[in-house]
Amino acid sequence: MSQKDPLVVFTPSGRRGRFPVGTPVLQAARSLGVDIDSVCGGRGICGRCQVLVSEGEFPKHGLTSKLDHLTPFGKVEEDYCVTQPLVDGRRLSCSAQVLGDVVIDVPSSSQVHKQVVRKEAEAHDVELDPLIRLHYVEVQQPDMHDPSGDLRRLEDALEFEWRLTDLACDVIVLQQLQKALRAGHWKVTVAVHAGHQIVAVWPGFKEKVFGLAVDIGSTTIAAHLCDLASGEVVASAGLMNPQIRFGEDLMSRVSYVMMNPGGEKEMTTAVREALNTLAHEVAAQAGITPQDILEATFVGNPIMHHLLLGIDPTELGGAPFALATDRAITLWAVEIDFAIHRNARIYVLPCIAGHVGADTAGVLLAERPDLTDKMTLLVDVGTNAEIVLGNNQRLLACSSPTGPAFEGAQISCGQRAAPGAIERVRIDPTTLEPRFKVIGSDLWSDEPGFDAAVAGSGVTGVCGSGIIEALAEMYLAGIIRHDGTIDGALAARSPRIQEDGRTFSYELYKATEEARPLKIMQNDVRAIQLGKAALYAGVRLLMERLNITTVDRIRLAGAFGSHIDVKYAMVLGMIPDCKLSGVSSAGNAAGTGARIALLNQRSRKDIEALVRRVEKIETAVEPRFQEFFVEAMAIPHLTAPFDELRKEVTLPERTMSSTDAGQRGRRPSRRDPKPVQA
Amino acid sequence: MSQKDPLVVFTPSGRRGRFPVGTPVLQAARSLGVDIDSVCGGRGICGRCQVLVSEGEFPKHGLTSKLDHLTPFGKVEEDYCVTQPLVDGRRLSCSAQVLGDVVIDVPSSSQVHKQVVRKEAEAHDVELDPLIRLHYVEVQQPDMHDPSGDLRRLEDALEFEWRLTDLACDVIVLQQLQKALRAGHWKVTVAVHAGHQIVAVWPGFKEKVFGLAVDIGSTTIAAHLCDLASGEVVASAGLMNPQIRFGEDLMSRVSYVMMNPGGEKEMTTAVREALNTLAHEVAAQAGITPQDILEATFVGNPIMHHLLLGIDPTELGGAPFALATDRAITLWAVEIDFAIHRNARIYVLPCIAGHVGADTAGVLLAERPDLTDKMTLLVDVGTNAEIVLGNNQRLLACSSPTGPAFEGAQISCGQRAAPGAIERVRIDPTTLEPRFKVIGSDLWSDEPGFDAAVAGSGVTGVCGSGIIEALAEMYLAGIIRHDGTIDGALAARSPRIQEDGRTFSYELYKATEEARPLKIMQNDVRAIQLGKAALYAGVRLLMERLNITTVDRIRLAGAFGSHIDVKYAMVLGMIPDCKLSGVSSAGNAAGTGARIALLNQRSRKDIEALVRRVEKIETAVEPRFQEFFVEAMAIPHLTAPFDELRKEVTLPERTMSSTDAGQRGRRPSRRDPKPVQA
Repeated sequence: MSQKDPLVVFTPSGRRGRFPVGTPVLQAARSLGVDIDSVCGGRGICGRCQVLVSEGEFPKHGLTSKLDHLTPFGKVEEDYCVTQPLVDGRRLSCSAQVLGDVVIDVPSSSQVHKQVVRKEAEAHDVELDPLIRLHYVEVQQPDMHDPSGDLRRLEDALEFEWRLTDLACDVIVLQQLQKALRAGHWKVTVAVHAGHQIVAVWPGFKEKVFGLAVDIGSTTIAAHLCDLASGEVVASAGLMNPQIRFGEDLMSRVSYVMMNPGGEKEMTTAVREALNTLAHEVAAQAGITPQDILEATFVGNPIMHHLLLGIDPTELGGAPFALATDRAITLWAVEIDFAIHRNARIYVLPCIAGHVGADTAGVLLAERPDLTDKMTLLVDVGTNAEIVLGNNQRLLACSSPTGPAFEGAQISCGQRAAPGAIERVRIDPTTLEPRFKVIGSDLWSDEPGFDAAVAGSGVTGVCGSGIIEALAEMYLAGIIRHDGTIDGALAARSPRIQEDGRTFSYELYKATEEARPLKIMQNDVRAIQLGKAALYAGVRLLMERLNITTVDRIRLAGAFGSHIDVKYAMVLGMIPDCKLSGVSSAGNAAGTGARIALLNQRSRKDIEALVRRVEKIETAVEPRFQEFFVEAMAIPHLTAPFDELRKEVTLPERTMSSTDAGQRGRRPSRRDPKPVQA
Repeated sequence: MSQKDPLVVFTPSGRRGRFPVGTPVLQAARSLGVDIDSVCGGRGICGRCQVLVSEGEFPKHGLTSKLDHLTPFGKVEEDYCVTQPLVDGRRLSCSAQVLGDVVIDVPSSSQVHKQVVRKEAEAHDVELDPLIRLHYVEVQQPDMHDPSGDLRRLEDALEFEWRLTDLACDVIVLQQLQKALRAGHWKVTVAVHAGHQIVAVWPGFKEKVFGLAVDIGSTTIAAHLCDLASGEVVASAGLMNPQIRFGEDLMSRVSYVMMNPGGEKEMTTAVREALNTLAHEVAAQAGITPQDILEATFVGNPIMHHLLLGIDPTELGGAPFALATDRAITLWAVEIDFAIHRNARIYVLPCIAGHVGADTAGVLLAERPDLTDKMTLLVDVGTNAEIVLGNNQRLLACSSPTGPAFEGAQISCGQRAAPGAIERVRIDPTTLEPRFKVIGSDLWSDEPGFDAAVAGSGVTGVCGSGIIEALAEMYLAGIIRHDGTIDGALAARSPRIQEDGRTFSYELYKATEEARPLKIMQNDVRAIQLGKAALYAGVRLLMERLNITTVDRIRLAGAFGSHIDVKYAMVLGMIPDCKLSGVSSAGNAAGTGARIALLNQRSRKDIEALVRRVEKIETAVEPRFQEFFVEAMAIPHLTAPFDELRKEVTLPERTMSSTDAGQRGRRPSRRDPKPVQA
């Protein structure tokens, strides 16, 4: 290049260089290392390499950029526009050639490494860098004078056009290769996994392939279908985990396996069938076939993880809770009977410990507490709460047997979050009268039109977040004492407080002609107390190990964490005291982690390394856990002052019933494969 | 170690060192790098590390070696002897400890890298170095204070005891691992593939695993079961290739695929079923189950290769004869429905060109012509002859369409090599009377007792080697002229020469009450002429490329090559002139190559590199091939002097019939998927 050659400046990278007249823009970009995508290798087919001319004077670059400093539309771009118009002045950079000084803008959609998982401000960015890449190539035809296999000539083309070397090839590709080459007139698109394995081949140009990120929960399985070229979620679906018929919670499923030889195979089959149903559903939503899904990632708790992989989970049902493996696993779809593309690769995130699963690895990957110096608490509440605490110095993890109370199970009026369920509760501390909202309506129960709004669903129960609010409001109104007992003395003040054998209950919703009354019983309070004490005790254990008394941030992951009002969770003492502004929902962080692992290959190495660094604490063998548990039975806590909370909420004076709360605490255990709070 | 410590000398390596009293012999050997096998890691279980004390004065080592310079039998050796006695004074080197100066002999059976494929003097040795190794380990039990997966602790044990690092693990192993560890009381044997992949796990000590070397011929499939610890062949079996029902020869099978959509799947299924039958048969012979077979290697011609792998062979049926791949392939047994160990790895040797298959790669690996400076010709005769010519400088390969005549097909009196078939023929040049031997008897037909000896089988036909001898003897006796015509003038001298329409025939065996006569017809001679001319022309083409006129060695591979008398093959001009002492059978060299690839991992890299080096010649596009073919129609050849042959055999004067032999020659072709000599 000489000083007389046109100057080309790329934005936003700022890279610049002089190129002879007639240089294709894509070629100029590549020689400068500017990030522009391409699947077809500059043949004007894929449309991935679109750019824009920025017109005008650019004094800082010392040039004037004009539209006609690129060649006008040629045949290639015209042909391309027949199927998909180039909008807003976009050009195919592989076709447009440099005629004069020009500033070229590369929009984010044309970048290979675009940012795709960008969440709220405090979360980190994830750049698109999937393991599966499509490459369109023209392959030399066989020549009897220089015989060579079709695969070798395909590999030569991939090396020549895409600098891919040392490629391996799945045998199923070999079975399809010769027909694909001939059907595509020696032009094919191949999918290459991790830059070294040819996993699929199609005749001609194949525009898109997809990946699936799956979160296997004990209750629900959720899947997100992503376009591997854009990173976008193009379809989502969820369904109930069919293993529920073998047991509502994890431990009863393990118990089923222990009591029914071969039971693990039934459950493995059940979950795999559900996955195939899901894959079909998301594929149908997106208008593709499951064969277009070339990659899938999975998160799930250790028992779901083992059952997915066909590993008997019995060892996870009793001490010492040994995982079969705490490594990440890569395998073929066919190995787990997953009827997506026959050669699709499956990546299962690593489990961390016997009760801290690949779902927590997903949360870690989504949240990356190791990238900040803020002391961060991550909590994923389920039948077992999985807890991570730490920052860029250290990370600790444990799980705590919270039981199913937070999910509304074992609560007399509990139900799943569905229309008709009470989800918000307020109690007037003077009258002790409640008002509430139910799922399906935005109206409070004391607002006009409420009855009409809920006429369809009725008021049928209280969901997890409703229970938390009900109990917290009962505590704030003085109905529940510091030790968790419902104060029977208040029965004199309000008919809502009702004697119920030797204990008292609070009537949240009065019976109607159609519906039963909804009451908070003393046993309901106890179930929540047991769960929240276990959760708090697990957190305290980690805090003690780190020698800290406060945390900077609390992130609540999972469905439960998304719906509860964090203030009420803190009033009950589920989580330690913290500035309320530092407490937030992390949404379905485990699923987000699966999506990150799907879209960014480096993230897999990151999470594998991170998981190894995590210090695993088994609460079952920590003598202090029992002590912390007993103290945490009180509301919000026997001793912790909760000063930050008091800045926002006026807590009642501490009052105790005749029996100390601590004596009611029973150490929770996982040795018994049945739910501990039975 | 000090100068006062006992001196230990190992033979045959000659390595020596001083070791403190009490050092186990195995430990001393390892510290000196002496090659002693062990699976159990020195626990006295596997018995692989047996050694002998060489007693006596050893002036050259400066020591006196005595039996009692090792500790006496301890509990470990006594326990071992309960199941398997230690014979001939052998000791377990892991148990016996050094007490004084001693010379220790390591027998070949105790060496890891023992020589296992040692053939006649001129062939190279192959050392035992299989990809699958067994390792017995004790794994730490899980500890709740330091949670880790069972796999991680297994890997830690493999690293600590066997220095194996960066191991991957198949998911099926994970499915079995936890039960195996507990059933074996935390002692397991694992099979590691190529030093990096855990492919199987068994509770406790597993003594042996096996490998299978398979040669898939168009007609027969042969399998050899090898003990991967000793390299010994412990069972062999063969069966007819069931694809024969789709077509006798290769091209008619390709033709079947072209005419019957899905026909390739039928043939793939057929060959895979046959493989499972074979695996069961060899396993039963050896008293094991197919699950004990952890590795298999395959050779076969390109069409058998493709059909085994489920690749449609249509492209191999017509120009340009493109292989799907010319690379070696490693895959899981389950990928080809091979019901040996679920995790067994399959290695398929590389094909070389469209008609030069993995069987030729096997021949190359068995013969290694690249290791000598002698110019070597390797010929594997089948429907297509696969030909390799070269030495340590260059190697060329081609195939030539010889047709099925050499296999006895298309010969009027031809039959497979079976009892009753004539396999040896001599003709008295004066009387023109024949004598012969049939398979199943060692007597010549003119010897007393012959009739009784063949009474059971009868004399039913002529096998391939018999045809060669009959024709060569007919030529030497003057019955067949230089141009291949049967000399009708001789009908006057012998009733064996009979008019047969416009041509003549030779009656080799007269009709009896039970049997038809066996005659060599003019058309039979023509069929052999066409085949041998094609073979010779292919060889000439390679010789011309190498600019040579003679070869130093000729090795005939395959069943045909094993049975023919090389002198007669040369008399007919099947192979070029060469010192007769330089011509020999290579036996089932393709199968030997498969066995080498099974037993020695480095050999796989060797053959892959070698195959890439081979210069591939496609006879179909070589104009000179036609010319060479026409010249080679004459017996032994139109122009070649065959001086070496003349030193051993008196060849008749050249006589011609009125028509020149060349005019009868028709260029053979493979474009037509039906047999060319139809």
